[in-house]
Amino acid sequence: MAKPVLFVLSAPSGAGKSTLIHRVRISLPDLFYSVSCTTRPPRKGEADSVDYHFINRDLFIQMIERGDFLEWKEVHGSLYGTPIQPIQSALRGGRRCIMDIDVKGATDVFSRIKESIGIFIMPPDLQTLENRLIQRGADSEDSIRLRLQNAREEIEFATLFSYKIVNDNLDRAVRDLIDIILLESCPMDKP
Amino acid sequence: MAKPVLFVLSAPSGAGKSTLIHRVRISLPDLFYSVSCTTRPPRKGEADSVDYHFINRDLFIQMIERGDFLEWKEVHGSLYGTPIQPIQSALRGGRRCIMDIDVKGATDVFSRIKESIGIFIMPPDLQTLENRLIQRGADSEDSIRLRLQNAREEIEFATLFSYKIVNDNLDRAVRDLIDIILLESCPMDKP
Repeated sequence: MAKPVLFVLSAPSGAGKSTLIHRVRISLPDLFYSVSCTTRPPRKGEADSVDYHFINRDLFIQMIERGDFLEWKEVHGSLYGTPIQPIQSALRGGRRCIMDIDVKGATDVFSRIKESIGIFIMPPDLQTLENRLIQRGADSEDSIRLRLQNAREEIEFATLFSYKIVNDNLDRAVRDLIDIILLESCPMDKP
Repeated sequence: MAKPVLFVLSAPSGAGKSTLIHRVRISLPDLFYSVSCTTRPPRKGEADSVDYHFINRDLFIQMIERGDFLEWKEVHGSLYGTPIQPIQSALRGGRRCIMDIDVKGATDVFSRIKESIGIFIMPPDLQTLENRLIQRGADSEDSIRLRLQNAREEIEFATLFSYKIVNDNLDRAVRDLIDIILLESCPMDKP
C-alpha cells in the first residue's frame, strides 16, 4: 500500500499542467484526483463531478460557512473551491492524491494538510511558452502578453514548492512526475 | 484591561468602511490596527508603515515561505498580505485589534485566529451605494456597474460574519461599531 500523500500541482498558464496530469492519471489509476466545486456554468464538453462539481452560489456559501473547503477563491465573479472531505477520506484510506491548483491556493493547502507535497511545473522558457500560447490560438495578442507577464511573476513562486519539473518534453515531464509520486508515496522509510 | 480580540471588518466597495475605521480609531486610540504589506508602489499621500508596509516582490515571497502572513493575495499583479507577528504580539499583550480585509481573507483569518470576530459593513441599499460611487467621481460608468454587481454578490457573504452593521448613517454606524468592540472586548464574563 502506498503512503498517503497529497501532491499539489501548480503551474503558470500554458506550462502544460492539464495534459501532464491527464497522462499521469492514466499511468497511475489508483491516484485520487480532487474534483473542485464551482459556481460557474459548465463549458461545452465538461461533465458534472468529473471536471467540476457544478453548484449554486447559495450552496457554495453554506459550504464556506460549514468549513467544507480546504481553500476557495473568487475569479471574475465565479467561486471555486476544493472540498476537504474527499481528500481527507482518501488520505485516511491510505491513498495517494493529486490536486491541481493556483499558487495561492497551494500555499493554503501546505499550511492545512501536513501530508501535502508541492510540485511546480515550469514552462521550458518564456519564448516556448509564448509559441505554445500562439499555437493554441485561444488568446488575443493582449491576452498572450498578459499571460506571459503573469507567467514571469508566477515562476518566482516556484521556491515555495518542494519539486520543480521543467516541461520542455512532455514524455520526460510525465516520467519525472510519476517518479516523484512513486518515490514520495513509497511506504518504506529511508534508512 | 480589555480582552484580546481581533475584529475583522469586511465590506463591499463603497460601503464606507475606511471612514468608519478612521473614526473608530480616533475614538479608541488603544485599538491596534493591522498594517498590511504590499508590493504595489505607494500612491500619492500614502506613507510607509502607516497605510502599508511597501516591500519588494522578493521579500514578499520570502515572507510567504517563512509563514509570516496570516493571509495574502494577488490583485492585478500586486501582492498584499497581513503580517501575523504584530497581531499575535498585540493579542498576547492583551490588546484589542482591528483589521480591514476582503471577505475571502476574512474567512482565512477566522480559521487561523481563534480570538477573531467578523463584522460585515453593509451599504444601506444598492441605490444609495450607486449614488455614493457616482458622487465619489472616481469610477467610470462601467466600473460603477461592475462594483454594484460585486456588491450584490459580496453581500451574500454577510452570513459568514458574526455582526452586520448597515451604514446608512455614519454617526450611528460608528457608535454601533464602538459598541460591538466594547462589548466583545469587555473583560467580564457573562453571568
